[in-house]
Amino acid sequence: MTSWQDTFFSDFAAMSQFGATPGGGIDRQAATDADAEARRWFHQWLEAHHFQVEYDPIGNQFGLLEFYPGAPYVLCGSHLDSQPLAGKFDGSYGVLAAASAASLLGYQASMEALHPKYNLAVVNWFNEEGSRFSPSMMGSGVYCSKLSLDEAQASTDDRGTSVDAELTAHGFKGKFTFPTPISYAEIHVEQGRNLENLGKQIGLVTETWGARKFTVRVIGEQAHTGSTLIADRKDALFGAALVITEVRRLAERCQKELLQASVSHIKVLPNSPVTISRETTINVDLRSPSSEALDWAVLALEKILDNVEKEASVRVEKNLTHSWELSPYCAEGINLTQHIAEEMGISYAKVQTVAGHDSTNLKDLCPTVMLFVPSVEGISHNEREFTKPDDLLAGRDFLVEVLSTLVTDGLA
Amino acid sequence: MTSWQDTFFSDFAAMSQFGATPGGGIDRQAATDADAEARRWFHQWLEAHHFQVEYDPIGNQFGLLEFYPGAPYVLCGSHLDSQPLAGKFDGSYGVLAAASAASLLGYQASMEALHPKYNLAVVNWFNEEGSRFSPSMMGSGVYCSKLSLDEAQASTDDRGTSVDAELTAHGFKGKFTFPTPISYAEIHVEQGRNLENLGKQIGLVTETWGARKFTVRVIGEQAHTGSTLIADRKDALFGAALVITEVRRLAERCQKELLQASVSHIKVLPNSPVTISRETTINVDLRSPSSEALDWAVLALEKILDNVEKEASVRVEKNLTHSWELSPYCAEGINLTQHIAEEMGISYAKVQTVAGHDSTNLKDLCPTVMLFVPSVEGISHNEREFTKPDDLLAGRDFLVEVLSTLVTDGLA
Repeated sequence: MTSWQDTFFSDFAAMSQFGATPGGGIDRQAATDADAEARRWFHQWLEAHHFQVEYDPIGNQFGLLEFYPGAPYVLCGSHLDSQPLAGKFDGSYGVLAAASAASLLGYQASMEALHPKYNLAVVNWFNEEGSRFSPSMMGSGVYCSKLSLDEAQASTDDRGTSVDAELTAHGFKGKFTFPTPISYAEIHVEQGRNLENLGKQIGLVTETWGARKFTVRVIGEQAHTGSTLIADRKDALFGAALVITEVRRLAERCQKELLQASVSHIKVLPNSPVTISRETTINVDLRSPSSEALDWAVLALEKILDNVEKEASVRVEKNLTHSWELSPYCAEGINLTQHIAEEMGISYAKVQTVAGHDSTNLKDLCPTVMLFVPSVEGISHNEREFTKPDDLLAGRDFLVEVLSTLVTDGLA
Repeated sequence: MTSWQDTFFSDFAAMSQFGATPGGGIDRQAATDADAEARRWFHQWLEAHHFQVEYDPIGNQFGLLEFYPGAPYVLCGSHLDSQPLAGKFDGSYGVLAAASAASLLGYQASMEALHPKYNLAVVNWFNEEGSRFSPSMMGSGVYCSKLSLDEAQASTDDRGTSVDAELTAHGFKGKFTFPTPISYAEIHVEQGRNLENLGKQIGLVTETWGARKFTVRVIGEQAHTGSTLIADRKDALFGAALVITEVRRLAERCQKELLQASVSHIKVLPNSPVTISRETTINVDLRSPSSEALDWAVLALEKILDNVEKEASVRVEKNLTHSWELSPYCAEGINLTQHIAEEMGISYAKVQTVAGHDSTNLKDLCPTVMLFVPSVEGISHNEREFTKPDDLLAGRDFLVEVLSTLVTDGLA
């Protein structure tokens, strides 16, 4: 007989084929053909394991195990979409771990080895990554009413294709309304080095870092690169390059590891080899556990932009797109998971998350538990992303215990 | 009766409708629908004015006036394609001025008021701008054997569409071989401020600036923008931004107006809001009349790239794509046009060109005359590009005299 561990790895391998890249990762951006294939595979997996499958209007994919009609649900999941050329663990591991754990608990309940008080559901949130369609954490954002359904459906990719068109084309735009859960749990790869450095197998996430995210638009004037004198230039790409270099130096000027400052997206108009850019737009992403550090960075950014306007003879507009402070996960969840880890004798550490997750949205809707498994060298959003097999299994085992408590006793 | 001036402006207005933009310019990149419409319009114009229309395999569009079968041709023209959101004068003015002047000379010959020794042809060179399909000056480059036909036909745009596919689809891939001309003439807007500053109406182009053009590829490593520590980052976009800012400063460090240094094109992978770039490619465009200044700038660029490798923890590759020195137009052409200007009493100046033109290719094949009309404020590759109506007419009049001499006496 096949062990559950073998089944878990063969399911994970099957899932990892959708959008597989030669470099050993996946490229499965939201609502692409590869994402649709992964979703259809997961749909079939859920039905084969006795879940009822439903979709809401933003394409969130739910698998329901209804023990008591009308009872509240415990919900557990993550996301199957990926960044371009990304790792196969980010999001996908959490979806499969949730499904595997919930399936086991469903089986136990059917054998009367478990006596749940609540129903249990798993979820694959739509478009957590936000690389093809902005903003990120789209499915959970709409579900938690932080983002309007209309705005999300109208979001378009670089070619002008909308979320709504793609969800409709692939058959993932549903009419289901999943009720507010009694609690939510998510397990994810850490994407940082803390657990590895500490030698621990499970991370109990206590807080999510604060962030300020901006779109910065640099407005210059289109001109001939050959014949336009330097003094006459209003070069928007030069202006944006100054911002990019100075934003990076912000992080270096701040106390060590207190501030993450990044620019990773750029749009240049007209982006021609012989024409100076008339307009260049970039993102500026500032993250810190300290609100004071974030406020300092925003003030410093404003000074940078003032200087860039002068040095590059351009006009700069900045638009705040995301802003939140260090925000805790609920103490009851942390206490519960700490208790379970001690009971199980599994090594654990309390850690913060710098990356956003669907649980960042859910935790403001209902009591939420967020768990990490270690990432080798902290590598993520990269085909080389890796988590050791033992850690994957330990995380799934741990999630079984957590969900078992959540569906029976609930959070104290 | 309509004056030739009225006809010239109504033809120019008709031509400027193809790819017209709300900002008063045109967007008519090579082999787009707008470019194809302009070419069909010009085809009809040529036939209506008794030219025989032919296309070669790279889509160069020729209009022939054959006075003596087998005699060599004098050729005159420019290009109808444009940069994105560009002015309507760049290239297009030169094509219409050539056609208008040649048509008049053809009429004079038919009336025996002119006794040509050579045949006369006009040309609309394919893809001078190079914004959609690289490299620029493609049609004249293939015609002058500086670029292979296969390479040019295989060039693709951002969506993977090839030159060959577009030329075939629009019906502009022909089999004609235009013979080597006895001489070539081109008139173009200056795209700089020299004539305006000097208060002159015609520029006699004596030399084209030297240039070194590179593709610089910055290779980093894809990672999560949120959770990857600054010390662990190999951020290719940060590396490219350092290059962009330092290349600009090269021009500022050099003697005033001796060096043009630009970056205007960038490709970022994966270009996602939450993923650090694994690879960013930019162009670096250095131009100067001084070979020494160019050599100095290339050495300085190498130092910049070495420093960027260290500061951004990336690897940098640079690939030289274009290299030429200050290069003269033929003395006979300059002497001829100076003589004509003095005879006509039109104000003129000898000027250099910083921008490349199709004549830059032709001048290495046959004796070539290059003429400029003034650009208001030197603005070009911009919808606000403008040349005064009187200057447009004076340029066409001047071209009539030049071509008249070239087809009768030839270059002394």
